[in-house]
Amino acid sequence: MKAQKWILAKKFSGQANDENFKLVEYDLPEELQPNEVLCQAVYLSVDPYMRLFPNAEGNPMIGEQLAEVIKTKNGEFPIGSLVLANVGWQSHFISKGDNLTPIRFDIGSTPLSYTLGILGMPGATAYFGLKRCDPKPNEIVCVTAAAGAVGSVVGQLAKAQGLKVVGFVGSEDKLKWCRDELGFDHVFNYKNTNFSEALSKVAPEGIDIYFDNTGGDYYHTIINKHMKKHGRILVCGSIQNYNDKEPKKFDATNISILMNELTVYGFMVYSSYEKWPQAFTEMNKMIQENKLKVKEQVYTGFENMKEAFLGLFKGDNTGKAVVKAVNASTNYP
Amino acid sequence: MKAQKWILAKKFSGQANDENFKLVEYDLPEELQPNEVLCQAVYLSVDPYMRLFPNAEGNPMIGEQLAEVIKTKNGEFPIGSLVLANVGWQSHFISKGDNLTPIRFDIGSTPLSYTLGILGMPGATAYFGLKRCDPKPNEIVCVTAAAGAVGSVVGQLAKAQGLKVVGFVGSEDKLKWCRDELGFDHVFNYKNTNFSEALSKVAPEGIDIYFDNTGGDYYHTIINKHMKKHGRILVCGSIQNYNDKEPKKFDATNISILMNELTVYGFMVYSSYEKWPQAFTEMNKMIQENKLKVKEQVYTGFENMKEAFLGLFKGDNTGKAVVKAVNASTNYP
Repeated sequence: MKAQKWILAKKFSGQANDENFKLVEYDLPEELQPNEVLCQAVYLSVDPYMRLFPNAEGNPMIGEQLAEVIKTKNGEFPIGSLVLANVGWQSHFISKGDNLTPIRFDIGSTPLSYTLGILGMPGATAYFGLKRCDPKPNEIVCVTAAAGAVGSVVGQLAKAQGLKVVGFVGSEDKLKWCRDELGFDHVFNYKNTNFSEALSKVAPEGIDIYFDNTGGDYYHTIINKHMKKHGRILVCGSIQNYNDKEPKKFDATNISILMNELTVYGFMVYSSYEKWPQAFTEMNKMIQENKLKVKEQVYTGFENMKEAFLGLFKGDNTGKAVVKAVNASTNYP
Repeated sequence: MKAQKWILAKKFSGQANDENFKLVEYDLPEELQPNEVLCQAVYLSVDPYMRLFPNAEGNPMIGEQLAEVIKTKNGEFPIGSLVLANVGWQSHFISKGDNLTPIRFDIGSTPLSYTLGILGMPGATAYFGLKRCDPKPNEIVCVTAAAGAVGSVVGQLAKAQGLKVVGFVGSEDKLKWCRDELGFDHVFNYKNTNFSEALSKVAPEGIDIYFDNTGGDYYHTIINKHMKKHGRILVCGSIQNYNDKEPKKFDATNISILMNELTVYGFMVYSSYEKWPQAFTEMNKMIQENKLKVKEQVYTGFENMKEAFLGLFKGDNTGKAVVKAVNASTNYP
């Protein structure tokens, strides 16, 4: 049968652009071998880490998808099963089942696409990343990319735990959403605000936790100027740097880390993978009770993966960006 | 009576030099008020942090000393008592007792000057700093300024706990001491070795713990090139940077911290002050059993404080540098 995949046509260097990607059609065997299943993408994720992680030219772009089993020779995965798979940007793929994970918690009536967002890797990143920082009521947490898939959840979880939240976003719409609907204490549009001056104003004694999705100037300036004694920094992403062709130079941070006895955590969420279902059960309850609000930017059609991905770096998306593969045999909401 | 103090004559800027210090004589009242004691320095400490911590021009240089009570109107501190005090570079001082601490453990026959070194702040820094990094047998720890007051203890404690130790020092004598007497696995003289090449050679798969007394190039290069997954970095000092007039710029470290899930601890030893006596009791036993070896660089005479201090930045000292104030009324060993 004919399948499609987006390959890394040319290694990233500097700003990601059209040249890095190529949509190719290819043949999948018509006959399955014993234990094999044929899966078809339902929703696919685009996330900034796909710019960062190593990949070889010619390989499919890396990434996770929610897929439906449409043909099977594996009793564990009957036709119609839904599975999560880290198989990259492919419209269809064949698996022996070893790289397929059913949804590991009771999703109830929550939209399935959330398994790639708030109830998937980005949501787990927010949940376990914040936990790693040992947040305490009345502490101040600052989060960048605050309207994004991770940041919007970090801020809401922090609010629910009694912290004060300062968020930075890149548009007035995002600002309004975070302030008026998510209830963050202070939200600034970094495009018309100096983030350091803004932080000095709303947190003159410094912040306790910096949840860093941005890197670059934010990481260095916040460590050197805005952390309280015993503050914690979670290094979660560095979108400001991913497209740098030549690495920029920055002020050293080590003396500030020393003098304020800061702790800096490099955080990857897969270390807590076993505990995800427990976190998702808790967060799904909050979603049902309207205590966690979710926005998705849904792109329709597998052919729009590239556009959705490049949108991440242009700040096009509020909340989680996902791509709905309309060629799925079943229509999922 | 006449007393002497070294004052900060001119704020540090760039390389510390003669101009920053002035030895002045001044009068202390002859009569003590109720509860007051008159103390006379016996041993004084010089440490790199004295370059870093804020101080005002005209104030005594900051620092700790072991002093003897030579006059008293305070029953808690009879004549001849020995006390530790953070009162700066002063030959004599009057106190109401609130800033005096008796030696808080049984020092036995160990030299008293060790209370400013291995059984004082630098030793506690090594002990609790290493502990903070959660060291495990067979892990590799790298320590800079490895023949110094902190580094020499870090390396020995790590060896005693079954780790492999790579140390960097600044002279052949220091190298021999660390390698032949302290038993470090690999020791390099950074003056004739490229530290990054040396690390690649002896720890091709990276190091687990970096105990950073140096900062600057070491901090940035080791984080970016030499840490194993889940490595820990203890930021303890930054002697390479203290004398920088204009802060240097460095490569960002945050993406490496993220990708290798590193943890960076800014560490100040006073947070564990209550537990120091327990650590010193343990280390004093190791000293008595010759399992911890100690070198001191003893400068004689209060007038030599400046020389001892400047020697820290010239790499003059092996082990702990202390100044013996020979005007003490009692002769301590």
